Amino acid sequence: MSASTYAQQHRDRFVEELKTLLRIPSVSTLPQHQDDVRRAAEWLLAHLRDLGMTAELIPLEGGHPIVYAQSLHLAGGPTVLFYGHYDVQPVDPVSEWTSPPFEPTLRGDDLYGRGASDDKGQVFGVIKALESFLRDEGRLPLNVKVLIEGEEEIGSPGISRWIERHARKVACDFAWVSDGQLYAKGLPCLVTGLRGLLYTEVEVRGPSHDLHSGQHGGAAPNPVNAVAAIIAGLKDRRGRVTIPRFYSAVREPSGEEKASWERLPFREEDYLRELGIPVSPGEQGYSILERRWARPTLDAHGIAGGWTGAGSKTVIPAKVVAKVSMRLVPDQRAKTILRAFEKKVSKLASPGVEVEVRELAGGDPVLISPTAAPVQAAMRVVREVWGADPVFVREGGSIPIVAKFDRVLKVPTVLFGFGLPDDNLHAPNEKFHLPNFHKGIETVIRWMERVGTK
Amino acid sequence: MSASTYAQQHRDRFVEELKTLLRIPSVSTLPQHQDDVRRAAEWLLAHLRDLGMTAELIPLEGGHPIVYAQSLHLAGGPTVLFYGHYDVQPVDPVSEWTSPPFEPTLRGDDLYGRGASDDKGQVFGVIKALESFLRDEGRLPLNVKVLIEGEEEIGSPGISRWIERHARKVACDFAWVSDGQLYAKGLPCLVTGLRGLLYTEVEVRGPSHDLHSGQHGGAAPNPVNAVAAIIAGLKDRRGRVTIPRFYSAVREPSGEEKASWERLPFREEDYLRELGIPVSPGEQGYSILERRWARPTLDAHGIAGGWTGAGSKTVIPAKVVAKVSMRLVPDQRAKTILRAFEKKVSKLASPGVEVEVRELAGGDPVLISPTAAPVQAAMRVVREVWGADPVFVREGGSIPIVAKFDRVLKVPTVLFGFGLPDDNLHAPNEKFHLPNFHKGIETVIRWMERVGTK
Repeated sequence: MSASTYAQQHRDRFVEELKTLLRIPSVSTLPQHQDDVRRAAEWLLAHLRDLGMTAELIPLEGGHPIVYAQSLHLAGGPTVLFYGHYDVQPVDPVSEWTSPPFEPTLRGDDLYGRGASDDKGQVFGVIKALESFLRDEGRLPLNVKVLIEGEEEIGSPGISRWIERHARKVACDFAWVSDGQLYAKGLPCLVTGLRGLLYTEVEVRGPSHDLHSGQHGGAAPNPVNAVAAIIAGLKDRRGRVTIPRFYSAVREPSGEEKASWERLPFREEDYLRELGIPVSPGEQGYSILERRWARPTLDAHGIAGGWTGAGSKTVIPAKVVAKVSMRLVPDQRAKTILRAFEKKVSKLASPGVEVEVRELAGGDPVLISPTAAPVQAAMRVVREVWGADPVFVREGGSIPIVAKFDRVLKVPTVLFGFGLPDDNLHAPNEKFHLPNFHKGIETVIRWMERVGTK
Repeated sequence: MSASTYAQQHRDRFVEELKTLLRIPSVSTLPQHQDDVRRAAEWLLAHLRDLGMTAELIPLEGGHPIVYAQSLHLAGGPTVLFYGHYDVQPVDPVSEWTSPPFEPTLRGDDLYGRGASDDKGQVFGVIKALESFLRDEGRLPLNVKVLIEGEEEIGSPGISRWIERHARKVACDFAWVSDGQLYAKGLPCLVTGLRGLLYTEVEVRGPSHDLHSGQHGGAAPNPVNAVAAIIAGLKDRRGRVTIPRFYSAVREPSGEEKASWERLPFREEDYLRELGIPVSPGEQGYSILERRWARPTLDAHGIAGGWTGAGSKTVIPAKVVAKVSMRLVPDQRAKTILRAFEKKVSKLASPGVEVEVRELAGGDPVLISPTAAPVQAAMRVVREVWGADPVFVREGGSIPIVAKFDRVLKVPTVLFGFGLPDDNLHAPNEKFHLPNFHKGIETVIRWMERVGTK
């Protein structure tokens, strides 16, 4: 037999097991689900041990544990590090779900449930590929380490620090992450770049206590007006971020990369319709895909403080806090940009207010060479399994762990997601297209055979 | 005897009656106090009828009733319209009160309780002046109309419209409003100007649904950034409002008025300390008092929508709503400024967003001539009773009803408040200095004698 045949024969059981995992409401952001998150970790631990892997739970201070497993039987053989996450997003608004979010339900070929695609379904697909080797052949074609975290939906704070301190434990030759989507149905993709993220809180303080705007308007500093001036001053009318030297480390995508994006089935009018907007504003001189994938940008997310209830309260609030983030691209560094951001914000502070910047999250951008051997191997395997040449794309979002693989472990990561663009991630009615589950397993099996030493 | 002697002899009972009124928690903004607001109105109605006045409750659609009373016994005699309000502010945070807000408590000469100064204590002082004439002399020295509303703390929406339609009912020769403070302890003041108010909501809509800022940042319009640009664009770096023709109707205060302000015991360092600010920003070339009293200005109060919770949610919200108000001065008109504001906001809207302006409250500014006969009479009487020449000041805040008296009834209003600047209006531990209560009653008595025909 072969691992592939084994996987074929156990399709139905794989789906039933996935349902069991999906029934555990491991919502990492909500305190009332702490025990459920732990339960999901323990379920995976038992499952991996049952397959014959050495596995453990690694506690993270004040957070959810990492599930770690390994099988290092090939002395000197290549080692792959698989990464995924077992935590899921909250389910609000629960009334918009057609079937209960934690009662996985099959409709047609789609399995509905929170976490079905992001990321339980995909990481479980990887585990089922491992099982197929272990149960069918008794061994894996290369050394394997598995890292499944429970804090991805809250920004991976614990594992990012953990990796810095335990680089030797997870040392490897390359990594594989399945936590994404095909570019379009029938069109698989491999991701060659992720933007970094610098997420801050800007606190602006004015008077020592809330003031009446009738009595003091015109003479008192107003933190709402001041924070508006700061946010507005961070971008110019042409959509460029005004922070000095913000763009100096930005690397232009290669002509080849840009040309490949132009061949993608991306239509501006579809994009505008999907977002419900008349035009796509932004930095002039760049295409929409370039602006989303290869250009850094700055977005404000909300402003707390002041009067936001009904009616007309005439208050000058003592302080407000704005959430402002920047997406970074190679070779920008979050730390460098943070310092330049702080300086610029101070300069934009109007007279009479004090400003403080706090970093809430930070992660560097990363590029993955499409010519790296494991990526090339993936390209060939994807073509075989999916019947289409994968396209090379970038992601506008950030997976901080991948930058750590690049920076700390100094290895390339294959980013191949087998969800679909309409999987409703982070939204009601999340689903997973089961044919993709099975093809995903087959993809991992063939890739392991190709990069392995068997 | 005389009305003044009567008032002296019944001092203690007056205070006990005021306490009864203060025990009614007539918080107009809170639905759970609807019945209490009504109870306060009925208590006043009965009280005024008991004094022999013709009195009624005037219902306002969807709001709290006006208490209206009159005594028009002098054919052809002058008529005064007294105005006040029986509703009070909420008491939050109630834990900061030393004694319960609705259990009036005497500490030294101060009576503590919500509404003690704003405005129950002051309007009740006016009623006690009327009683002193009616009980002692059996008649008032001039025709009197009394208008006590229950919606002042929610912006007087009902009574402003009501006055337009019932101008004949409340026709008078002049008005008197006691709903304010001395300039400082020992220094009474008469108010000669109030700023107007135009309070708006600016709604900015971007994408049709919330977006992930990683996936779309740089290509999607961001309503938070857009509203920041709008607010920032409404004022220039020198503190001037940028709305075209915003200042064209602004009337400079007379040299005499400005000179009188310079003689006030106002010290910039005290003001900065009181507000807890290092400098007072604002329009260049004007003193702090000018900027608070005689210059129009613009303040943003808060921005709703977007992510304001803990942590770092990377959302581009579909829409946000900002609260933005302008304080207006003579001869600006709220309606004219609203139109100019709407135009300017539209111009400031960045590509890809839609903007809508909603007016939440509006009231014109008003000037009162210090040489008007009833104001001159008040000046003399205040000097006698308080032992100090009153100063003429303006108020930065707005009392919309006074503009209506000016515009609709075409009469001057005497604005004499006998609270103190440290009465903790709208805050915990509101109090009323009882010696001022009694002096206030005496002031109203003597003023009525002076402007009356007796």
